[in-house]
Amino acid sequence: MQRTLAADLPEHIGKQVRLVGWLHHIRTLGKIAFLILRDRTGLAQGIVLKPDKIGISDLKRESIVEVIGKAKVEKQARRGVEIDVSSMKTLVEPVADIPFEVNRSLEKLNLKLDVILDHRAFGLRNQELGAVFPVQAEIVRSFSEFMHSKDFLEVHTSKIVAAGTEGGTALFPVQYFEQKAYLAQSPQFYKQMLVGAGYERVFEVGFVYRAEDHATSRHINEYLSLDFEMGFIDSFHDVIEMEKGFIGRMIEALGANCHDEFEILKARLPEVKDIPEIRLDDALKVLKRDYGHDTSGMIDLDPQAERELCDYALKNARSEFVFVTHFPAKSRPFYTMPDPENPEFTLGFDLLFRGVEVTTGSQRIHDYNMLVNNIRKFGMDPADFEFYLEIFRYSMPPHGGLAIGTERLTQQMLGLSNVRQASFFPRDRFRLTP
Amino acid sequence: MQRTLAADLPEHIGKQVRLVGWLHHIRTLGKIAFLILRDRTGLAQGIVLKPDKIGISDLKRESIVEVIGKAKVEKQARRGVEIDVSSMKTLVEPVADIPFEVNRSLEKLNLKLDVILDHRAFGLRNQELGAVFPVQAEIVRSFSEFMHSKDFLEVHTSKIVAAGTEGGTALFPVQYFEQKAYLAQSPQFYKQMLVGAGYERVFEVGFVYRAEDHATSRHINEYLSLDFEMGFIDSFHDVIEMEKGFIGRMIEALGANCHDEFEILKARLPEVKDIPEIRLDDALKVLKRDYGHDTSGMIDLDPQAERELCDYALKNARSEFVFVTHFPAKSRPFYTMPDPENPEFTLGFDLLFRGVEVTTGSQRIHDYNMLVNNIRKFGMDPADFEFYLEIFRYSMPPHGGLAIGTERLTQQMLGLSNVRQASFFPRDRFRLTP
Repeated sequence: MQRTLAADLPEHIGKQVRLVGWLHHIRTLGKIAFLILRDRTGLAQGIVLKPDKIGISDLKRESIVEVIGKAKVEKQARRGVEIDVSSMKTLVEPVADIPFEVNRSLEKLNLKLDVILDHRAFGLRNQELGAVFPVQAEIVRSFSEFMHSKDFLEVHTSKIVAAGTEGGTALFPVQYFEQKAYLAQSPQFYKQMLVGAGYERVFEVGFVYRAEDHATSRHINEYLSLDFEMGFIDSFHDVIEMEKGFIGRMIEALGANCHDEFEILKARLPEVKDIPEIRLDDALKVLKRDYGHDTSGMIDLDPQAERELCDYALKNARSEFVFVTHFPAKSRPFYTMPDPENPEFTLGFDLLFRGVEVTTGSQRIHDYNMLVNNIRKFGMDPADFEFYLEIFRYSMPPHGGLAIGTERLTQQMLGLSNVRQASFFPRDRFRLTP
Repeated sequence: MQRTLAADLPEHIGKQVRLVGWLHHIRTLGKIAFLILRDRTGLAQGIVLKPDKIGISDLKRESIVEVIGKAKVEKQARRGVEIDVSSMKTLVEPVADIPFEVNRSLEKLNLKLDVILDHRAFGLRNQELGAVFPVQAEIVRSFSEFMHSKDFLEVHTSKIVAAGTEGGTALFPVQYFEQKAYLAQSPQFYKQMLVGAGYERVFEVGFVYRAEDHATSRHINEYLSLDFEMGFIDSFHDVIEMEKGFIGRMIEALGANCHDEFEILKARLPEVKDIPEIRLDDALKVLKRDYGHDTSGMIDLDPQAERELCDYALKNARSEFVFVTHFPAKSRPFYTMPDPENPEFTLGFDLLFRGVEVTTGSQRIHDYNMLVNNIRKFGMDPADFEFYLEIFRYSMPPHGGLAIGTERLTQQMLGLSNVRQASFFPRDRFRLTP
């Protein structure tokens, strides 16, 4: 008899069904028992009218069971269907007591994050903890599909590199046979090189590594970066418009495919009409004027400024997203294109979402001599970047791109208190397992 | 005036067009000049009737140029269209002599692989070198789409791990703050754990790392692994059937979307009806009988055996693919399910394609005690695998999965002599740049 999945039950009303999954919950009420079975599609409710016959008392929660019975309409049940159980069998049984309950709400469980992460795979059986990842997968999928639809080539570039992207800090060393190497901080150089290789438009979904010391709720040391880079742009606005297109597509996809997960997590999709833009210097003035934030001397946004600016954008432009543009050259990497109207600023931007930066992007320098000079201006030696610089000698088109932090975007989308909840196996200052 | 891409020229016959791209080739013939421009979609041919007026003699190859003219029918030209050039402008010029020609065939260029890889981004401007990656991207895309259509969740699992998958050899050490860590050899443990987390079906596209010393034409030390793992299987044949489904979908996608690339590379799509299976012990007998290969004592296939077995499958089953099954337990990792009919063998298999192994898979052990015993039998300490073993205590379903080497599959699909040609920035025993 073929397996029926929990989500497909409504199509089988009046028929015999066979479900296989984990025993999520079981409860006896007088001479009747109720059970809930869990499979990859969700929960299914069953009613057992003769529990003794079926041997209910021997069943252990989190066993893998086979349930056979008739699917019938029951308005109170999930999806309006209940199984009238005629037989039940344990296929696999736990060999130890479970570390914590998984069939209750996180609020009731009140577990410390470290406990959840120590038992990561088991904990994901909890509906709330588990619902994060189908959403994240949909974010990644909508990114790949959108990029593909815009004629971008998906690429995968090496994560073991001889030098860092931004010039050598916060790197994890790797012993590469006899050579000293590092884990890549970003695919920045490679994606630019592949624009120059003639692909013009490339995107990558891949892990990047930052050996940063801080332990905050919004940093992990290994994160999934959604990167793209595009050639033959007219301005950095081409990059911003491309991201707007992706965001629209992503929200559409989440709305269409992640209804259950948003409900389980009590999360809300953002409404997006157009995303406002504000220059960093104007933003700092606004924060001083409206929020009493002493922004003098600031060349970047701190977390408080990010929150305030999002509050401002929500109130004044009804947007939960806001682009901040024209960051000072001092706060941006050497490859960022200076603003031709005032080279103290750059054509670099961030995207903030619900109080947190989720994207960094810019137009890049494409002129070989300008790039070499900028490397020197940053106190570095162009010879160290020869592998990157070479393609700039043979004609690079005007180009730009950006990087989106997947876990952080997931965190903000779902209102998670800690970015670690949006990583299957997060790596931080102190955590290297599971 | 909007940019027209080379591939879109046939839609613009009789109209003024503006193309932007690299100057691939230019040649003067008496009072007429012919030029070829290259953009991300391919080549476009132009004819210049008054070269002096346009300043043809100053143009440098591999400059980025803007070409304006009228698109007209010309049967001899690519896609049957030629541009009657009325104006031309250099937008970006090379600042050095190019390291080698990119507008000739690889055969004529006769470059050493090391020279190609030393100038990787530039070399990809060559049509043959560059055509590899749209094919690879299509392989990856068809994998993701097929897996998604079969209800698999895309996951991304950490590549920095505290222990190796197969038990500690061939690992690249990473200094992770104060702790010693390693680069992941495979997502094996994590994908199994996520099956047990309740997702049942997961897939991953990600780099894996093998610090293996050998320098062959089919090994690189960082490669892109296409992994999947599926729970609630009835037999390891469910895994094989899933791979057959993917292969069919992949070939369909390559046929539909990579016609130009296959032509440029003079490659041929395999015809697949059904893929035959042969037990390893039977295969070794066949090789002895038909190929005079002394296979006595062999517990795995060596490269010669892989070639011979593919030859045999082609001749006897008209298939360029062949599954080899029931590898001995000695040649497979500890988590491989023993064959219940004879535990000296396993429910593990390989897929060979055109003479090379491109997939390794198996049913896995799902019983906790059996798994712990097998770890001990392999001379390892279960305590070292606690992070992996935990979920097996709380009911794991029967499951299996496999891993496909993307670069090697690309290599075999396109008939590339070296797997490094199927990696943008390959890492091997001696190569860490670019």
